[in-house]
Amino acid sequence: MKAPDAAAYAAAVARQAILTKPGGALGRLEALSAWVCAVQGQCPPRQFTHPALVIFAGDHGVARTAGTSAYPPEVTAQMVANFVIGGAAANVLARQVGATVSVVDVSVDADPEYLSALDPTVAARRVRRASGSIDREDAMTLDEAERALDVGRQLAREATRSNADILIPGDMGIGNTTPSAVLIGLLTESAAAAVTGRGTGIDDDGLARKTATVAAAMARGQAVVGSPMELLAMVGGPNLAAVTGYLLEGANLGTPVVLDGVVSCAAALVARALEPDAANWWVAGHQSTEPAARRALQALGLTPILDLELRLGEGTGALLALPVLNAAAATLAEMATFESAGVSGREPDA
Amino acid sequence: MKAPDAAAYAAAVARQAILTKPGGALGRLEALSAWVCAVQGQCPPRQFTHPALVIFAGDHGVARTAGTSAYPPEVTAQMVANFVIGGAAANVLARQVGATVSVVDVSVDADPEYLSALDPTVAARRVRRASGSIDREDAMTLDEAERALDVGRQLAREATRSNADILIPGDMGIGNTTPSAVLIGLLTESAAAAVTGRGTGIDDDGLARKTATVAAAMARGQAVVGSPMELLAMVGGPNLAAVTGYLLEGANLGTPVVLDGVVSCAAALVARALEPDAANWWVAGHQSTEPAARRALQALGLTPILDLELRLGEGTGALLALPVLNAAAATLAEMATFESAGVSGREPDA
Repeated sequence: MKAPDAAAYAAAVARQAILTKPGGALGRLEALSAWVCAVQGQCPPRQFTHPALVIFAGDHGVARTAGTSAYPPEVTAQMVANFVIGGAAANVLARQVGATVSVVDVSVDADPEYLSALDPTVAARRVRRASGSIDREDAMTLDEAERALDVGRQLAREATRSNADILIPGDMGIGNTTPSAVLIGLLTESAAAAVTGRGTGIDDDGLARKTATVAAAMARGQAVVGSPMELLAMVGGPNLAAVTGYLLEGANLGTPVVLDGVVSCAAALVARALEPDAANWWVAGHQSTEPAARRALQALGLTPILDLELRLGEGTGALLALPVLNAAAATLAEMATFESAGVSGREPDA
Repeated sequence: MKAPDAAAYAAAVARQAILTKPGGALGRLEALSAWVCAVQGQCPPRQFTHPALVIFAGDHGVARTAGTSAYPPEVTAQMVANFVIGGAAANVLARQVGATVSVVDVSVDADPEYLSALDPTVAARRVRRASGSIDREDAMTLDEAERALDVGRQLAREATRSNADILIPGDMGIGNTTPSAVLIGLLTESAAAAVTGRGTGIDDDGLARKTATVAAAMARGQAVVGSPMELLAMVGGPNLAAVTGYLLEGANLGTPVVLDGVVSCAAALVARALEPDAANWWVAGHQSTEPAARRALQALGLTPILDLELRLGEGTGALLALPVLNAAAATLAEMATFESAGVSGREPDA
């Protein structure tokens, strides 16, 4: 795997020092601008004008058997239709930043014809219908996990071929946060209670039930924690495997990625276990309120750009962060230097 | 002073509950969208398409006498020229969000002809040349403070007449953070050491010198802490008074404001002391690294949208927050409802 461009990174750091502002005064924009230069291989950088959001949808058996969500499983298919129509939060936020939106049914628990009146191709790559209930059975077979990973890889390649200059992983699936917590718990060696959150908004009883479910799945997955694909198959899920492939292939292609919430973070940990250098191509869009997301980002060494208390997924937090990334790139590319603007520098010994 | 529209606020809260997402899942965007509705007097809201940034420039005697800045005072005038040319960070970020940029020399310490080759009108409203050194003398007379406040009021009126739908207060002035710390220290009853920060990046010796300067000015200002205009005259500065007027007049006109860093926050505290209801029309764009900014925002009851470790002023943090405000408005205005999209709601007793 190619590394981001160290020379472009160094050029960005050097250029920040001569722009008309006190050194460091643009705060995190300065480090972000250097990351943008490194992943683009050029300084000054250009703005991201062709972001591609892919929403990977799938249902999770555990939501039906263990009641870990506040919403019924049929919502996943209904929301896939809503994405196709353009009515979801992710669609609105994608329009704000000019991002394309693709929706892929990886493992939705609905008759594939549910989309017949809209866009039947959305379900054409489905790997399986829902996952197994991970507290008691495997999410999928190893072969299905490989196929799901490949769906994500394909989508990253297709987006890049269509001129996407930055990738955003989205997710939709009632029950999504349960396998995400399991994967993050196992890969960061955290207790079930420390990684289990309220997801879409479950009450205290639901949280106790969900924590027990996460603990049971973590116990099952412990034996394969060193084998990322087996881990995905046993306690992940098809749409999580697809997100993992999307992140990996972005890094492979040198197309940068803005991570979103807890599903992104879980997939990122698995992807990094498969390919340790992949994380250099990712930036964290936001801090989800799900406790597992915080642990995962710490483990990945990524500091989120935004903290707006979002817990929606779909790619929404990453889409919101994109204007900050572009602002970072714009300041580095367009600001005057002390010399060009005739501005005096810092006093000696200040 | 008119209050923001309570009915529009209530309509926004009600509408958030029927959009296709779990209740609360858009985090702080939901409360921001309700604020946008309240200040616009309508639900659904429209986006802010005509933001107006006004940068109030002024020098502070204390920077020259007490050496509280890492940069020489002549930088203020040089940066005013840089704003006129369009090379500063604020210009770049204003272009990103389509904001107009006006620069006003309120009290720059330079011969007014310094702008003759560029735009002499920038210096046409100057109230005085630099302020007095507030650790030992008044910043300005009470009459000058009133005139400076009125410059800010005029700029808010002119912007609103030119169809600005949201106001951004910017500031430029070597030494700016010293009177800001003094005002915030006095108005939040904080110790000098708790409100004094490194500004443009002074070293430990500079910080000790600056803290002593802030303490001396706070001791001078203590007697007039209950009289906001006298306070501005004694330990503020002409450009701080102008920002205060800009914030007040925005609220008076019902034109909302995005506060920026520590200078904005100091002016906001003074403005609220003059008009307690004005703060309803303001939102906090970001959390500056200056310690006084945090105290001021807490006192104002405002939670910053962004925390990107900026410490530049100029309006940069507020400009960066604008896309988040517009995203909040867009989600509320454009998302489908559960009913319109045929999506099932929350399970009973979840």
